[in-house]
Amino acid sequence: MTVFSLDMINAARGNSPADVIFSNASIFNPFTCTWDKGTLAVKDGIVLGIGDYTGKKEYDLSGRYIVPGLIDAHVHIESSLLTPREYARLVAQHGTAMVIADPHEIANVAGAAGIEFMLSQRAELPLDIRYMLPSCVPATPMDVGGAVLDAPDLARFKNREGVSGLGEMMNFPGVLGGNTDIGKKLEIFSLRDGHAPMLLGKDLNAYILAGLQSDHECTRKGEVEEKLKKGMYIYIREGSTEHNIEELASLISPLTVSRCCFATDDCHVDLLMQDGHIDRCIRKAIACGVKPELAIRMATLSAAERFGLQDRGALAPGRRADFCVIDDPQKFIVGQVFVAGKILTDIPPGTETTLQSTFRCTVPSGDAIRIRSIGTVRVIGIIPHQIVTESLVLPVESAALFKNDILKVVVCNRYGNGACGVGLVRGFKFATGAIASSVAHDAHNVIAVGTSDDAILRAIRAVIGMQGGMAAVFGDEETNLPLDCGGLMSTLPYPDVATRLQKLHEVTDKMGGIEDPFMYLSFLSLTVIPSLRITERGVFDVGEFRDVPLFIE
Amino acid sequence: MTVFSLDMINAARGNSPADVIFSNASIFNPFTCTWDKGTLAVKDGIVLGIGDYTGKKEYDLSGRYIVPGLIDAHVHIESSLLTPREYARLVAQHGTAMVIADPHEIANVAGAAGIEFMLSQRAELPLDIRYMLPSCVPATPMDVGGAVLDAPDLARFKNREGVSGLGEMMNFPGVLGGNTDIGKKLEIFSLRDGHAPMLLGKDLNAYILAGLQSDHECTRKGEVEEKLKKGMYIYIREGSTEHNIEELASLISPLTVSRCCFATDDCHVDLLMQDGHIDRCIRKAIACGVKPELAIRMATLSAAERFGLQDRGALAPGRRADFCVIDDPQKFIVGQVFVAGKILTDIPPGTETTLQSTFRCTVPSGDAIRIRSIGTVRVIGIIPHQIVTESLVLPVESAALFKNDILKVVVCNRYGNGACGVGLVRGFKFATGAIASSVAHDAHNVIAVGTSDDAILRAIRAVIGMQGGMAAVFGDEETNLPLDCGGLMSTLPYPDVATRLQKLHEVTDKMGGIEDPFMYLSFLSLTVIPSLRITERGVFDVGEFRDVPLFIE
Repeated sequence: MTVFSLDMINAARGNSPADVIFSNASIFNPFTCTWDKGTLAVKDGIVLGIGDYTGKKEYDLSGRYIVPGLIDAHVHIESSLLTPREYARLVAQHGTAMVIADPHEIANVAGAAGIEFMLSQRAELPLDIRYMLPSCVPATPMDVGGAVLDAPDLARFKNREGVSGLGEMMNFPGVLGGNTDIGKKLEIFSLRDGHAPMLLGKDLNAYILAGLQSDHECTRKGEVEEKLKKGMYIYIREGSTEHNIEELASLISPLTVSRCCFATDDCHVDLLMQDGHIDRCIRKAIACGVKPELAIRMATLSAAERFGLQDRGALAPGRRADFCVIDDPQKFIVGQVFVAGKILTDIPPGTETTLQSTFRCTVPSGDAIRIRSIGTVRVIGIIPHQIVTESLVLPVESAALFKNDILKVVVCNRYGNGACGVGLVRGFKFATGAIASSVAHDAHNVIAVGTSDDAILRAIRAVIGMQGGMAAVFGDEETNLPLDCGGLMSTLPYPDVATRLQKLHEVTDKMGGIEDPFMYLSFLSLTVIPSLRITERGVFDVGEFRDVPLFIE
Repeated sequence: MTVFSLDMINAARGNSPADVIFSNASIFNPFTCTWDKGTLAVKDGIVLGIGDYTGKKEYDLSGRYIVPGLIDAHVHIESSLLTPREYARLVAQHGTAMVIADPHEIANVAGAAGIEFMLSQRAELPLDIRYMLPSCVPATPMDVGGAVLDAPDLARFKNREGVSGLGEMMNFPGVLGGNTDIGKKLEIFSLRDGHAPMLLGKDLNAYILAGLQSDHECTRKGEVEEKLKKGMYIYIREGSTEHNIEELASLISPLTVSRCCFATDDCHVDLLMQDGHIDRCIRKAIACGVKPELAIRMATLSAAERFGLQDRGALAPGRRADFCVIDDPQKFIVGQVFVAGKILTDIPPGTETTLQSTFRCTVPSGDAIRIRSIGTVRVIGIIPHQIVTESLVLPVESAALFKNDILKVVVCNRYGNGACGVGLVRGFKFATGAIASSVAHDAHNVIAVGTSDDAILRAIRAVIGMQGGMAAVFGDEETNLPLDCGGLMSTLPYPDVATRLQKLHEVTDKMGGIEDPFMYLSFLSLTVIPSLRITERGVFDVGEFRDVPLFIE
């Protein structure tokens, strides 16, 4: 960026007054990780500088601390269950000024129209949304979703405002196999996010050599160390159910901080409302021993540098005057928020046109989801607070199903082919009932888990009845949250979405389930994260990258 | 960059052998500033990775250290007196893999044709030369050189291979004045180098706000601290006569190192041959207390990051296999050099076409350079090892001229307008004789300094006779170095240029002069660096940015 107007230059020189000055502030400087006392001057939403400026308006910050606008390096907005506009209304209050979002979910449902919808929502928000285009629609060649986006489809978006690069390349087997369409996608963009959970050694070398520059899937220290050393940017993730900061915090140092950012990846609206967004990541990092100044640098300048943004990430001349006020860096509670130099004021809830989804799903028959045999089975093992799963091998008699926390999980194709896959999962802890959802990464078929076939079918029926949504069946009670926008997002205002999700969570609590079961459920069909998954075809082994039978012969 | 070929991917995965492996090496990792033992594998000039690779060929490094190819963040190749090809032959031996060069000098002489000449020389060199286009031709609106390059002239070069951005914006008064042509130049490029010696406070804010991102002119600690805090990249300079490392070394820390690079700016061929290039900067920094690992990070990854080069700066997968071998990081003596995985072999000296310069200069009359008055005069004071000068005010009788180290300095326009300016300078220490040169930043007129009018005129005559070059007049003896390429560079092989420059220096030593007097002389006409300068119009005050009379009334 260049801000080359005589008016601005004169104001920066102090020859004419700023629009507004923020006096008596302790201003975070991410270049030196220091707090500098001074007066911040802003004109036309741009920082003029810090110095003895005068302004037409003055905010006396009385010694409080100000921090540049926070940046989320990788997020799927759809996972909040909110539209981009509602998402912006919510996270802006937490000091987030920019998110780098991958509209991967809506693209898997609705293709280019889904991306257009997300782009159309960027305007006039208190949050700057930049998109990394979804690289894997469908997630793998074996998955069947609502669309296929090949390299020419993505190339059409290249020079669109708000498009920054290529989103997480989940199909690492495709990369390692030299898939030519993947090669073409990589050539279109100079910024390319990776996705390489547990990929190490020479296969990781090959993946990086192919052009992938970042990873947000690290769960172990050794993994971060290796990926950092090999030149990847590391986005340390803290999502609704993906908690990586605690394990990785000790790796943040003055030397590594410039190559590390925060990412929230997938967060439900209720978590965002209750606990916050990137501010939550900073608090968590501080609680895990990271110095506040390093945590804030990660959330500001490091992210701006990674994405080549010279006009963000710091309160320095020529950069956007996005910032938030805090009372205590160690506690990092966001108070007032300023967007382009103006105090954040709420915008009205969206009256936006929604995205019509083609929802063509039928309730499977009882026979279709019955497990007749007895023997040794593959069971998906949920790992608390992680997105990766275990691949368990357990002896099961049909009578043992729905006992010992081994529940049935069912995926029904929502795009009209009638396919239905059945598997087993351990870890939800439901004692009764079932839940179902049309949020099921990445094809977003209908997925259900429950304690009886009957409850499972009822939950699926409820989701189909809403043409997409979330449902919980508990006794005679049916509770739901319609997701009218592509079966992924609600067009309701965010507080209403949070309330309805909260009601669902109250019911699942009563059913004995773990916290946030819908988030875990949504990942069970994600064929790009180890170890065991469930698709409309049945059980899928990510390590072997193939469908495997439920029963081991 | 993306290196997406199945062949490369398979080799990175270890499924097929590398072209060459470098075993038993301690490999510098700039991401963590550590030395990692391992085997480096290379194919097609690209790093596959570090690991248990096999190769068609093996170099056993027997425990020695290898360091990624060094990068000079800002240099004027012309100042070496060599053509780019000869310059590359020389600095590649010192481990330099890339220079970010500003062809500002040749452009001031020959305009777009000068830039074309520099671009034409990039091919098939052991050095990757990237150009930042000269932003100030002429250096200031008051200077008259061989060309004027306005924004449309530069825009034509924007997408040329080898062009990276906009070179140092010296005309900071123009920036601060909101000059519209400068604004247009800034808008063309996203990478923009600054030049802001001693610019601080709100004027510095305005300069940065206008879009300038770096500075290589810092001479003081406080200046670096302020510029770092305001978001500038700092290139710490160590040129032939511009020595800034010693003063600034203590500011290099794990937190700041990612925003700091090295630059050599202006180095004569003899210094490069005797003392080295960026390797010299690293040694100097280490001698000044910087940890070797931080100094090497500055010279590698930090520079690559600043210029957005994802394929340089580290020996990591997908990056160019440029590196050098050293025996001891603390001593940093460059041994073998590898360019794209191959051992450096000398290329033949250039038989290149030269750049014809229009050299239209006449020897001034004795009257034209005579100083008739006596009184109080402005005298340019040379500061050893610095590019900045002092502005002295001294009482002088005409009889005192050429005594007490106060010498006459003369600038003659070389573009045909016949102008001739006369001033006084202290610091050269010549006891007899005179020197003259057609290297005189930035217009590159003929400049001379000497102990008598007669010797000065003879030296000027010698330079004109060569149609550009350097000359020393000592008694009856005349020694010279023709600069047949635009009056700035010699097309001779670099060892011959060094030998002839050495002979000049032997003569200037005999004359009692300071070390490297031609470099100091070349900067005396540089109207963009404080404090006092000399032009074809006479004495110039940089602070006041105007011509001033020699005599103070």
